[in-house]
Amino acid sequence: MKLIALETSAKTASAAVVTEGKLLGVSSVTAGLTHSQTILPLLETLLKGVSMELSDADGFAVSIGPGSFTGLRIGISAVKGMAQGLGKGCVGISTLEGLAWNFQGLHYTVCPVMDARCGQVYTSLFWVNGGRPQRLWEDMAIPLDTLKEKLQSVEGDVMLVGDGAELAFTALASTGKVLLPPPALRYQSAASVGFAALAHLETEEFLDPSALLPAYLRLPQAERELLAREAAEKASK
Amino acid sequence: MKLIALETSAKTASAAVVTEGKLLGVSSVTAGLTHSQTILPLLETLLKGVSMELSDADGFAVSIGPGSFTGLRIGISAVKGMAQGLGKGCVGISTLEGLAWNFQGLHYTVCPVMDARCGQVYTSLFWVNGGRPQRLWEDMAIPLDTLKEKLQSVEGDVMLVGDGAELAFTALASTGKVLLPPPALRYQSAASVGFAALAHLETEEFLDPSALLPAYLRLPQAERELLAREAAEKASK
Repeated sequence: MKLIALETSAKTASAAVVTEGKLLGVSSVTAGLTHSQTILPLLETLLKGVSMELSDADGFAVSIGPGSFTGLRIGISAVKGMAQGLGKGCVGISTLEGLAWNFQGLHYTVCPVMDARCGQVYTSLFWVNGGRPQRLWEDMAIPLDTLKEKLQSVEGDVMLVGDGAELAFTALASTGKVLLPPPALRYQSAASVGFAALAHLETEEFLDPSALLPAYLRLPQAERELLAREAAEKASK
Repeated sequence: MKLIALETSAKTASAAVVTEGKLLGVSSVTAGLTHSQTILPLLETLLKGVSMELSDADGFAVSIGPGSFTGLRIGISAVKGMAQGLGKGCVGISTLEGLAWNFQGLHYTVCPVMDARCGQVYTSLFWVNGGRPQRLWEDMAIPLDTLKEKLQSVEGDVMLVGDGAELAFTALASTGKVLLPPPALRYQSAASVGFAALAHLETEEFLDPSALLPAYLRLPQAERELLAREAAEKASK
């Protein structure tokens, strides 16, 4: 089975083509243009390189969040459009789970961390022991201090990964148990999203493109502010 | 410093842009068209993605072998041409050293293996302990049986990497000490060549493009056959 995967949840724009146990091709860019300008040309050149047409894909995978609201919408919309047009199915993968898959086949406790702004991080925990990442924690949005407390009870070193890894490494260095991954494994990769999706498809069906939805973990800032204002008004009455 | 790196030594065609500690972009394809058709379009789209012109690069890096004679010539010629035209310098990186850099920052004894045909593999050994790969063996072309003997004296598990990793994993599985890397870290990557080159540039100067040469480790098959014929003729006289 050949899957086309996209990752646009944060600063990296990434496209990949994967099949069982094999990475046919991947293009990732962590600088420069916005994802809406980058992701489709990257995918187009990649498909030419692997001698594939869009229609040769058996389905599409995409990271569905948490992450940048605009970034997620670009990746999810692109995948919805391509899948709908070609009558193919989709797989949505948690951005944090996708990050943990950067370490597929290695031997680390992996803690994906994304900067969620407002003093919080999106995070989770996975255990990788020479095979697939096994989930230990659900995806959550918590303050870095809470992550620090939670990691104290985790045995051994913890490999941070994601666009919040450097931030977390600095904040958690005093625990003496955090590791920073090499640059090539630090950020989101569509290859990891693709391999995670192949694993999901062993027990789950493809989603219809219309059923593919973002998992923001938090409400958008505007909605959070509206709710806060409404609560304040209610309290002052 | 920004380097453009190419890797075309084996089945993977890969282009990357790296700067100190950061992977700006990478495109790798392990299927489909020949490198001469793939590598420059991959690089062109990558540069657009990172908002760079060729002339923005401070220099070029390329894997110089061992590897496919045709593949090496494509990558080295492309880099020589671009560097010469732009008046920039080059860095040549051993293909096996480049493969070891896939594990930069992790914690493994890494054994790059490439299928050298004729019953031999190109191989070497590196130690990675959370930082840069440290070379333990020189690059060599040896039979798999010899590699098996040599690995017996290496302490701990050995992570195989390269297009010969699967071949070697099967042949060496009985040692109980070989590991097979995940698909995303298994093959040549221009990102690794770029990071290896940045490390070299801390103590070495850029090469003039004219001084960049392939390191085949073995003579081409035609020359080996000619020498064998000549030796046989001489012996029969």
